[in-house]
Amino acid sequence: MAVGDFPLPALLPVPGLKLAAVEAGVKYPNRKDLVVMALPESAATAGVFTKNAFCAAPVQVAKAHLAECQSRYLIINTGNANAGTGERGMANARSMCEAVAKAAGCETAAVLPFSTGVIGEPLPIDTITAAVPKALAGLEDTAWADAAEGIMTTDTRPKGNSQRLRLGDTEVVLTGISKGAGMIKPNMATMLSYIATDAKVSPAALQAMLDDATEASFNRITVDGDTSTNDACILMATGVAGNDEISGPEHPDYGLMAAAVKSLMIELAQLIVRDGEGATKFVSIEVAGGKDSAECVQVAYTVAESPLVKTALFASDPNWGRILAAVGRAGLSDLDVNAVSLYLNDVLLAENGGVAASYTEAVGEAAMAPEDIVIRIELGRGVAEETVWTTDLSHDYVRINAEYRT
Amino acid sequence: MAVGDFPLPALLPVPGLKLAAVEAGVKYPNRKDLVVMALPESAATAGVFTKNAFCAAPVQVAKAHLAECQSRYLIINTGNANAGTGERGMANARSMCEAVAKAAGCETAAVLPFSTGVIGEPLPIDTITAAVPKALAGLEDTAWADAAEGIMTTDTRPKGNSQRLRLGDTEVVLTGISKGAGMIKPNMATMLSYIATDAKVSPAALQAMLDDATEASFNRITVDGDTSTNDACILMATGVAGNDEISGPEHPDYGLMAAAVKSLMIELAQLIVRDGEGATKFVSIEVAGGKDSAECVQVAYTVAESPLVKTALFASDPNWGRILAAVGRAGLSDLDVNAVSLYLNDVLLAENGGVAASYTEAVGEAAMAPEDIVIRIELGRGVAEETVWTTDLSHDYVRINAEYRT
Repeated sequence: MAVGDFPLPALLPVPGLKLAAVEAGVKYPNRKDLVVMALPESAATAGVFTKNAFCAAPVQVAKAHLAECQSRYLIINTGNANAGTGERGMANARSMCEAVAKAAGCETAAVLPFSTGVIGEPLPIDTITAAVPKALAGLEDTAWADAAEGIMTTDTRPKGNSQRLRLGDTEVVLTGISKGAGMIKPNMATMLSYIATDAKVSPAALQAMLDDATEASFNRITVDGDTSTNDACILMATGVAGNDEISGPEHPDYGLMAAAVKSLMIELAQLIVRDGEGATKFVSIEVAGGKDSAECVQVAYTVAESPLVKTALFASDPNWGRILAAVGRAGLSDLDVNAVSLYLNDVLLAENGGVAASYTEAVGEAAMAPEDIVIRIELGRGVAEETVWTTDLSHDYVRINAEYRT
Repeated sequence: MAVGDFPLPALLPVPGLKLAAVEAGVKYPNRKDLVVMALPESAATAGVFTKNAFCAAPVQVAKAHLAECQSRYLIINTGNANAGTGERGMANARSMCEAVAKAAGCETAAVLPFSTGVIGEPLPIDTITAAVPKALAGLEDTAWADAAEGIMTTDTRPKGNSQRLRLGDTEVVLTGISKGAGMIKPNMATMLSYIATDAKVSPAALQAMLDDATEASFNRITVDGDTSTNDACILMATGVAGNDEISGPEHPDYGLMAAAVKSLMIELAQLIVRDGEGATKFVSIEVAGGKDSAECVQVAYTVAESPLVKTALFASDPNWGRILAAVGRAGLSDLDVNAVSLYLNDVLLAENGGVAASYTEAVGEAAMAPEDIVIRIELGRGVAEETVWTTDLSHDYVRINAEYRT
């Protein structure tokens, strides 16, 4: 299930970057499950990774390799997360890189490995390495849609988008793909996302853009509150566009490029929520009037992760009492409940600690009917504001996650 | 649904305390939904209440009344929580007390009001006050089972137990009942629980016993992570038994009495988990080897509230990867994942960051088969240990909470 219809738009090639998605047979036959991306020497690469202490072997290797030298290849498998696999998992993650390095003639540290799928089962490394030559032979710059499909696990559809923007006299492209449907909770979040531009951007500027955009996008979504062991988001700049290098925040093109990265990443993050496991609603939780950003995020996540709020959303039940109860347990000190107002889309549900005088069940039910719902909570104690995006909790969420390994 | 069979045992009368449960028709006909308890002048009463900032009107009134004078009556309705009801809710909670006070001839502040049920709908106060005389006329000391039934909402069965203990030469009784199945998360937790003894205990000693026992019982359970707006637990000592008054922790009988209160409350708390909405498993999450109690509780709750762990439990799937992932995101600083061991009942699942060499799927599945499951997590960084009790997340949880208001 997914909320609404979101066919994959045409994904623009990013000059300088080539990619391929092949059927390696990691877990299932006849399914694209191995993706390779190749970057030119001129590229810069930035990454953010899961903060889960049990971070997967490929995450540990990718972080180390990214710190060591400029990346030339990314290799991504689905069907197996290579997480919770101990020393053997580390060896397998390195073997993935070695297979690419050997076939492509680059340093092993110039290859970043990524895995997603079931946790805790040994990676079928021979199956993966056997498919590497085929993937390398098939590299082309038009395979973004194949790659978007090739990184899917429980996703019901591929996710991606492209933008064009003008930096001075140079037109550049920005294309990104993402995957994820469950085990989605920021910090950083989403299973995997890869974004590339042909603009010339320095590594430091690229990392700053990525950190900033992650905070506003993948770190503002939740499906089930579970942080994956394998989350990674990679931003690449091939540098072949011919623009004046964006060297840092003081560069005249930095703001434009950073804004484009942020808006693309927000879209990719929202697509993950829309495809959330069992999702029937796309819910924006806006918290305004907070003392600071942190407390707004805290309230928004408490509401977004409340099973009682989520099941009420599934039932299209305007059960504002559950929302108020979640706000009340979010841990804000000295919260004046009489100052809190609660809106569903544009309908005032509650104020002064109780239901609004203007509210009727009919109005509430009408507001709950659409697939896209905005819950707005005004705390009335400051000017900070934050938004978190989430889904409802449906029968299908339970079914999908109770049956995942069978 | 509920985990296992737990018929209500015989509940011993508590000399000095009389109670009655009647059908007032608060929400449904032909259902005991109003309970009144009467205490003698010699009684002491202690209470703990929800820390939800949106605490219900009756909670606010009960706290104020408890601080004002010794309680003589408790009045409890189900079918409506009188929460999120603003000023009108406060007036209604006071009216409940006034109705009892007027009919029974006591001060209004000597009456404690409690409500449980749907949040945010006006309390049908006239229906409740009309039934007060009948409840008062029916007071007797043998109606504990009726009261256990009379405080139920989505509970599938009444919950309670009794103990006898000897204080010096005096035998005293301890009887308690509780209700709750959803919106269960400590702080303090459970919707409602009432425990009484005929022992003579000073108010301060009684409150100390209650605080201590709450921390070990109701503050160690979770069904869905949602803290109710109406939680309350009341411990009453009628003082008619004739024992030497337990005046404080230095009294020779304090330890015995406090231990009895704690063990009864742990049982009442566990009964709530066993009757958790949609529950098919009763799960003890034991976290050992922590630096301190707080981090053990933090890990235990992160695992206990993970939707992915809970759906795996529902599927009887020994998906230890999801448990490790939850431990990893619990926020412990400097967690050495290689020092963590994970057991399911007595089966070693994982160690050194990966699956245990001795582990097989067949052994894991056998360990998952019973209704009662122990997940033991050894952090390997200290000597602190804590246990939290929870349930799985089933189709029925979603069904119950999506349909609750319809």
